[in-house]
Amino acid sequence: MNFDFVTPVDRKNTASLKWQRYEQQDVIPMWVADMDLTSPPGVQKALSKAVSAGVFGYGEVPQGLNQAFIDWCASQYNWQVEKDWLVWIPGVVPGFNLAVEAWLKPEQGLLVQSPVYPPIRVLGNLRQRPSVDLPMSESINNFSSYLKPETSALVLCNPQNPLGKVYSRQELEELAGLAEENDLLVISDDIWSDLILEPSLRHVPYASVSEVAAQHSITLMAPSKTFNIAGLSCAVAVIPNPKLRASYRKKMRGLMPDMNYLGLVAAQAAWEGGHDWLEALKTHLNANLDILENWLKDFPQIGYQRPQATFVAWLDVSSLQLENPYETFLQGGVALSPGEAYGESGYLRLNFGCSAEQLKQALHRMTKVLYNVGVIK
Amino acid sequence: MNFDFVTPVDRKNTASLKWQRYEQQDVIPMWVADMDLTSPPGVQKALSKAVSAGVFGYGEVPQGLNQAFIDWCASQYNWQVEKDWLVWIPGVVPGFNLAVEAWLKPEQGLLVQSPVYPPIRVLGNLRQRPSVDLPMSESINNFSSYLKPETSALVLCNPQNPLGKVYSRQELEELAGLAEENDLLVISDDIWSDLILEPSLRHVPYASVSEVAAQHSITLMAPSKTFNIAGLSCAVAVIPNPKLRASYRKKMRGLMPDMNYLGLVAAQAAWEGGHDWLEALKTHLNANLDILENWLKDFPQIGYQRPQATFVAWLDVSSLQLENPYETFLQGGVALSPGEAYGESGYLRLNFGCSAEQLKQALHRMTKVLYNVGVIK
Repeated sequence: MNFDFVTPVDRKNTASLKWQRYEQQDVIPMWVADMDLTSPPGVQKALSKAVSAGVFGYGEVPQGLNQAFIDWCASQYNWQVEKDWLVWIPGVVPGFNLAVEAWLKPEQGLLVQSPVYPPIRVLGNLRQRPSVDLPMSESINNFSSYLKPETSALVLCNPQNPLGKVYSRQELEELAGLAEENDLLVISDDIWSDLILEPSLRHVPYASVSEVAAQHSITLMAPSKTFNIAGLSCAVAVIPNPKLRASYRKKMRGLMPDMNYLGLVAAQAAWEGGHDWLEALKTHLNANLDILENWLKDFPQIGYQRPQATFVAWLDVSSLQLENPYETFLQGGVALSPGEAYGESGYLRLNFGCSAEQLKQALHRMTKVLYNVGVIK
Repeated sequence: MNFDFVTPVDRKNTASLKWQRYEQQDVIPMWVADMDLTSPPGVQKALSKAVSAGVFGYGEVPQGLNQAFIDWCASQYNWQVEKDWLVWIPGVVPGFNLAVEAWLKPEQGLLVQSPVYPPIRVLGNLRQRPSVDLPMSESINNFSSYLKPETSALVLCNPQNPLGKVYSRQELEELAGLAEENDLLVISDDIWSDLILEPSLRHVPYASVSEVAAQHSITLMAPSKTFNIAGLSCAVAVIPNPKLRASYRKKMRGLMPDMNYLGLVAAQAAWEGGHDWLEALKTHLNANLDILENWLKDFPQIGYQRPQATFVAWLDVSSLQLENPYETFLQGGVALSPGEAYGESGYLRLNFGCSAEQLKQALHRMTKVLYNVGVIK
């Protein structure tokens, strides 16, 4: 079957965070991590059926959704997940915030990668726990030097946003050893797990590397990045340890909204029938990466490593010596994510989850900016 | 325009909390407070358009939604709300839990009506604050006798669930006096504000009775009950006091999921174009109440007062001397809400937000139950 990653989507005036922010300007939004691409046909069909029925009362996770997720974990990650382990939540961000609240005493602290997705970066601050930055350049066998006496949890983002790094089984096993030795909870944000673009790699959930790892971990997953349904508020915390799970559920009570009805419908349809679409999407995203890399050849001043996963590229623009790189490109009509938000100035994150045409238009504008600032003479 | 409150809706196998709970049994679900009726045509149309567009990325409150809500408050409650006062949230329940967390110190306590909506009833317990029950039979001028030195907030449900009571301006002014004197925060759950069935009454938001009331209150509103979109996770906290609002927003960070994209779309469509449908709905619900009252004439043993608002009726079945009234009716094929959950055993809550036909079928089954238990000889 052919899927359409070509036809432009018009998201103006649609309550879209990505497009609304700059709607008064002539700006191509290449920032927040959702895609300017339509969701799988099966998702649209299921939503369309629910909308036609016309009743939008309280939702509850149906048996079919549990099974669809369990089957997905088995087929995609070779991970046998049990239904009892699943705690459905309205998003991965509340998911890791709850994990800290549920398990850490007020004085216990976090180890957090850097650079990293902004809501993870501010996690310690928001939850009022001491937080230590772990440079992404560090190898795992050096992590122990970052441990403080109060460190009680490590927040992993795998595949990593913004670097697109995929952790290998061996790395995760090493990490499990460290976590066991130091009695750490591992909170793993696996939201990008399905978008591994490097064909030789496969996603390994941290909790799947050993029974010990399973018992001291909370794995957060969602169909939101994979199938472009981030706006439908459906995610799941996989918590094999019953004690940890009970604390987590208790902490949720009153604070988490009911699961969104249409989010449940979309998630089930996505996991049940989205395999082929996902394969086609990955091919499309790799083609977009090729376009980006081809463009970058003209600008060796911009540092870059092809991401192994995600649909974001992490660009080192420090050598351009711009005072405010984000603002410079915004003035040139392209909205990127500023590196500062991830903990590293001199960088920009570019979202290439869009049509090839949109990417080319954005790159064309970026070329002009680079001319204007004198990178090209 | 005619709206359809007659055609049966089939919610089996639709991830519906209400229908899924008893799907293996021959049970008519008349419990959780959503309606077995379709949403306004304008809501369906807006959702249908969004689903056809096929992109479901991160949502953000559009300007049009703020305006639609402001206009709705002006036209329905004669309340002039300012855009700055609005804090959008994914549900009213997290809304009042956050209010407690944002404003009350750990030792400060709550005054909570009884009987009341279960998530309000357990609020003190969940948030680990001392909580005092305020019997619904008490008049407001007697509230002060329930105040403890640590009482710092009063949780109001207006219109009240499960009694369907609508508070008058005079009562709310009295309450405002009490709150001012005793430095109480008033958390008002106004989720039922649009479903006032008694034609002579109008909803008065607590915050609208005086500037003082506005400044010490958090009003929680949503389109969910009114337009039967409770499953779409869209609500709003109206907080005129900037200091209170800042604390509230701070407390939300990290814990609240992003606003649901389709919930935003549905809410805007509902408030922009739902007036006529709502009037027709209220006529329909009053007709259902007439059916219920007609049925109750044969059972004077069941205590009942016509609710001024909501689509739930609070039935006093204590004189039937049933060991477990909820279970007795469930065995007879009708799922009602047990009074215990609201803090009053011997009661049942019946949801009449459905077609007349469904209500009649449920009442028919309830008649049989009453025969079986010997109420009818």
